[in-house]
Amino acid sequence: MKAVVLEGERSVSVSDVPDATLPGPDGAVVKVEKTGICGSDLHLYHLTMGGQGVRLGHEFIGTITDVGADVHTVRAGDRVLVSGVIGCGRCVACLARDPSVCRKGGTRVFGTTLDLPGGQAEAVGVPAADSAMLKIPEKVTDEQAVLLTDILPTGFLGARMADIKPGASVVVIGCGPVGLMALRCVSLFGAGRVLAVDMVPERRARAEALGAEPVDPADGGTPAQIMARTNGWGAEAVIEAVGADQTILDAIMCAAPGATVAVIGANMNLALPIPMALLFFKRLTLRSTLASVPSTWDALVPLVSSARIQPDEVFTHKMGLSEAAEAYRMFDAREDGVGKVLLDPAR
Amino acid sequence: MKAVVLEGERSVSVSDVPDATLPGPDGAVVKVEKTGICGSDLHLYHLTMGGQGVRLGHEFIGTITDVGADVHTVRAGDRVLVSGVIGCGRCVACLARDPSVCRKGGTRVFGTTLDLPGGQAEAVGVPAADSAMLKIPEKVTDEQAVLLTDILPTGFLGARMADIKPGASVVVIGCGPVGLMALRCVSLFGAGRVLAVDMVPERRARAEALGAEPVDPADGGTPAQIMARTNGWGAEAVIEAVGADQTILDAIMCAAPGATVAVIGANMNLALPIPMALLFFKRLTLRSTLASVPSTWDALVPLVSSARIQPDEVFTHKMGLSEAAEAYRMFDAREDGVGKVLLDPAR
Amino acid sequence: MKAVVLEGERSVSVSDVPDATLPGPDGAVVKVEKTGICGSDLHLYHLTMGGQGVRLGHEFIGTITDVGADVHTVRAGDRVLVSGVIGCGRCVACLARDPSVCRKGGTRVFGTTLDLPGGQAEAVGVPAADSAMLKIPEKVTDEQAVLLTDILPTGFLGARMADIKPGASVVVIGCGPVGLMALRCVSLFGAGRVLAVDMVPERRARAEALGAEPVDPADGGTPAQIMARTNGWGAEAVIEAVGADQTILDAIMCAAPGATVAVIGANMNLALPIPMALLFFKRLTLRSTLASVPSTWDALVPLVSSARIQPDEVFTHKMGLSEAAEAYRMFDAREDGVGKVLLDPAR
Amino acid sequence: MKAVVLEGERSVSVSDVPDATLPGPDGAVVKVEKTGICGSDLHLYHLTMGGQGVRLGHEFIGTITDVGADVHTVRAGDRVLVSGVIGCGRCVACLARDPSVCRKGGTRVFGTTLDLPGGQAEAVGVPAADSAMLKIPEKVTDEQAVLLTDILPTGFLGARMADIKPGASVVVIGCGPVGLMALRCVSLFGAGRVLAVDMVPERRARAEALGAEPVDPADGGTPAQIMARTNGWGAEAVIEAVGADQTILDAIMCAAPGATVAVIGANMNLALPIPMALLFFKRLTLRSTLASVPSTWDALVPLVSSARIQPDEVFTHKMGLSEAAEAYRMFDAREDGVGKVLLDPAR
Repeated sequence: MKAVVLEGERSVSVSDVPDATLPGPDGAVVKVEKTGICGSDLHLYHLTMGGQGVRLGHEFIGTITDVGADVHTVRAGDRVLVSGVIGCGRCVACLARDPSVCRKGGTRVFGTTLDLPGGQAEAVGVPAADSAMLKIPEKVTDEQAVLLTDILPTGFLGARMADIKPGASVVVIGCGPVGLMALRCVSLFGAGRVLAVDMVPERRARAEALGAEPVDPADGGTPAQIMARTNGWGAEAVIEAVGADQTILDAIMCAAPGATVAVIGANMNLALPIPMALLFFKRLTLRSTLASVPSTWDALVPLVSSARIQPDEVFTHKMGLSEAAEAYRMFDAREDGVGKVLLDPAR
Repeated sequence: MKAVVLEGERSVSVSDVPDATLPGPDGAVVKVEKTGICGSDLHLYHLTMGGQGVRLGHEFIGTITDVGADVHTVRAGDRVLVSGVIGCGRCVACLARDPSVCRKGGTRVFGTTLDLPGGQAEAVGVPAADSAMLKIPEKVTDEQAVLLTDILPTGFLGARMADIKPGASVVVIGCGPVGLMALRCVSLFGAGRVLAVDMVPERRARAEALGAEPVDPADGGTPAQIMARTNGWGAEAVIEAVGADQTILDAIMCAAPGATVAVIGANMNLALPIPMALLFFKRLTLRSTLASVPSTWDALVPLVSSARIQPDEVFTHKMGLSEAAEAYRMFDAREDGVGKVLLDPAR
Repeated sequence: MKAVVLEGERSVSVSDVPDATLPGPDGAVVKVEKTGICGSDLHLYHLTMGGQGVRLGHEFIGTITDVGADVHTVRAGDRVLVSGVIGCGRCVACLARDPSVCRKGGTRVFGTTLDLPGGQAEAVGVPAADSAMLKIPEKVTDEQAVLLTDILPTGFLGARMADIKPGASVVVIGCGPVGLMALRCVSLFGAGRVLAVDMVPERRARAEALGAEPVDPADGGTPAQIMARTNGWGAEAVIEAVGADQTILDAIMCAAPGATVAVIGANMNLALPIPMALLFFKRLTLRSTLASVPSTWDALVPLVSSARIQPDEVFTHKMGLSEAAEAYRMFDAREDGVGKVLLDPAR
Repeated sequence: MKAVVLEGERSVSVSDVPDATLPGPDGAVVKVEKTGICGSDLHLYHLTMGGQGVRLGHEFIGTITDVGADVHTVRAGDRVLVSGVIGCGRCVACLARDPSVCRKGGTRVFGTTLDLPGGQAEAVGVPAADSAMLKIPEKVTDEQAVLLTDILPTGFLGARMADIKPGASVVVIGCGPVGLMALRCVSLFGAGRVLAVDMVPERRARAEALGAEPVDPADGGTPAQIMARTNGWGAEAVIEAVGADQTILDAIMCAAPGATVAVIGANMNLALPIPMALLFFKRLTLRSTLASVPSTWDALVPLVSSARIQPDEVFTHKMGLSEAAEAYRMFDAREDGVGKVLLDPAR
């Protein structure tokens, strides 16, 4: 079968690989029908994480073609969406749909290591299927289903982790696809005023269309901008959706006394110099997480189904799986008009 | 000065009464500019609460004309909105803006007893001014300010007390002015599907315009309707905005396992027969409250100012204070097209 | 095999019944080693719930003798404690260890109906074993294990549901075995002053030994007593551990403004007349639940293992299973010195 | 009058200073009767914070000798305890007893700057008296009252901020006076297993006497020790009560997936290099605060009054104010047997 394979820095191929097989009695094989490219795939594309030979992709949906004897919630023929993050599937955390804190240390992300091949492929073997899959509900489109595998849950968890109180002022730093998901989700917690920061005018425009006040960090830096717009008080909740060192520091500097800073951008720094004294004097909370995708489905599926959250428009490009190399190039370059790319193996 | 006085069952006059005076060094006198008629005023109008001679009204805004020496947050000339519910103003609860649980037992509602004359008048003496008043913020209209004195906070607290989780199915029983406020506020907590119950077609239409699914209780009763629409599971949060015995029981019968039933309709029954066994087997929470109005301003003012909540349209009629008798009659009769009535002493 | 069977009002036998068998591939058979008599068994004993022929008992521990192919967390030979309450075992609620709100409506209690025979027997077939069982941890005694199957979780949930804030005044009404568990658990939430109400002097003495102030309701009634001891303010959290109509009403009357009343006594009344007006004016929360036993094990096992909770002493009598008739009689009569009775099939 | 004055590095004097005067109509003058030396005073003693001439001390109790016209809750002659941290006294945060997030930016600590002279003196002028003072309740000893001005609230907030769930494993790093307060408070949130880390054997012994398992960081380092004792999982809540760079990093390294790290030790580092990637992969929360002392009194006073928390024993030495230089020296040197020192101006 075909799969997107990381060949080297900024180089992917669509190569022949062995067919996907059942990973065990609790697993399933999914014939992929749609798969997304995620901002965090670029960590691998830039070789700052993972390495050569990895089969990429953790956002995918499709139809089950084979299923193990121990799987109870789905069957062959079901169309499913698959959590980008999985765990052992058996511990109390995984059973409670929270694989990011798997008690067996089994937390893994598809498409980031050699031993869990990714979803940018014609098919995928999915372990721990009962805890990682959801039949695509009626009224949920394929695009929405793909978003439910990672970035909508990530944006939702960012909003929830930011401890937004009704009426609170909220800053979202980064208006790429994940930031745009967070911007949609802050309303679910009653966000009052919402400020959206991004360097790219087009991204700010998208944020503005969602009801946020756009902020250009070039105008004196993010903290200065936010302070100026909040009478020097800062924002009562801050969501960082980039993952760069500087934007995380900006996020902390934007925070009002008592605020929470939720970092959903993946940052791999093991020694990020943060202003601890500021946390002390301003009573700040700083937190981060790898999204526990399935934990959000109970909340998000009804919201998407009832059109209270309409995330589809984040996809600007739909291409064939065979065009993956070009898709990665465009997405990485942040070319004008490129939001998020959907790949279709059948195309 | 003129004030609306309760003369007897379904009878009010606009009468000459002594001018409002300063209630003490912590009080203020407010020249009333707009005042609303509330559904709970009808308890007095029907003589089921309060009694003859009471000067009615607890929703009012205006300009401060006199202020005591101990008042620090407002001054003469300020335009203010006044909480319909006040407390002693000095205890830890009142200082924390929570007069409904005043530690001195000082919780009172304007316009319900002889000793705290109401706001449907040319002027009002307001005790405990620092804890009961808010300068009308820029960008808040007079109509919005009136709604912030009682029914918007009440609807907001109903939504908050209902423990709505993002994506939850929510039922609001009663789509009068308070119910319509609750319908606006459930989104602040991420409500998924929203079902709105009312006997009056026009009220259901207003609820539907706010994104709710209208439910006519005549079609077999509210519980049967809600169960049919939720696969027999019930609603994960229920807000009762009527206050009748039957609608409270309906609210309990609609609730899904684990749900909370928040009663914001005022019910004066001291022996309402509830199905305790159902609370036990379905793990239900039943709660109610007299709205602690000032506790909500921090949340609601930014939401109204930023137009995330747009409650104004609930007012269908604006009349002079002198027309109060007719206004009460129309409102009590639930005449077609009558939502909420605003009275203007200057008109 | 032998099992305790309800013969009629206040009459049980220890009878020969068919051997326990595997209830399905997700089930297990447990050879019972210790089993308790619970206050709620008396509802059946008095024929106010359940009926003739029911095999009683929902508190039991033992050794697994047979196990279905779909069971993953326990194996034959394991010594286990079994939740008195079970669900379908497969829905998201059951997987998250919360069978009381089973999404399939599968919530059941052992020993209350003909189709789920009870634990006062030589063996029991346990459905949904993965979600209902826990291997008895090291450092947990058999007596503690039996308490973990129902009444310690019930007391814990009562304390948790009562929304106790650190320093809060707490009333526990009823100092039978369940009330004594609640009294132990209120400290886990920081209870300040604790008042314990019971008619029986010996039970009050046990409560006092746990650090509570004993209150005799005979001295003018519970509400008057509590009000007198709290300067007329009431208790900030109330736990009702009896389940009688009057004690539930007492619990509501004892509550301070803003308080929560948690009812853990099973009350089967479908029309209990409660003072709704009081809920409104005092902002009260009333809630109840059938204990979701497995949801508490993560919290309680470490607390019992580390001796921070020492519940064993609630057992005053240990008898053979064959002595069940006498055990029931004594327990029902609340004879002096009879707390809780443990039955041993091997004795 | 006499006051302790910072003369230079590791040098204090007891000097004649101008008498304390009323700081305004909302203030009071307190004749000091007992005053403590706090670990954070050593930041000034070492000149790492504040500077020469500062009059030290933020833990004090005494009798009001003069009071402004705007003060309502206390009067001359009252014996009071005074919050070490104050705010403007008028904003919604200060009125809600939360001066650490004063909306006017008025948060200040006694005895740390020239313009708010400290409590190690014969008298102190206290601004914003209504929001900063509490009459010493009956049943609260003088020693307990001094502890309620800072370190008991600090320990309590550390425990609360650590999001301890009942049964959770908790690590407290640092068993000086503040850490010992935290160790007492973790039980209020249901801590299961408690591990206490300190280099000093005597401090570990005190922690052990409070029910904690003592951990010597010398044995391979704190993180290795904690991991070894928790099967490699880490602690579910971590309280850092030292404030050193290394101990904060240790605290993060000790944390289990999903844990919260609450830093109550004052750390003035503006660039502490933290492992952000660990926060991401383990879903950690890191927070800190300057204690909002008055916000804790509602919780702590009943707990101290009812002897559920017995903090007094932390005082090992009681000396005269005139002996301040020797007291500072001993305390700074962590001499054997020196816990916390209480100074008495009358002695």
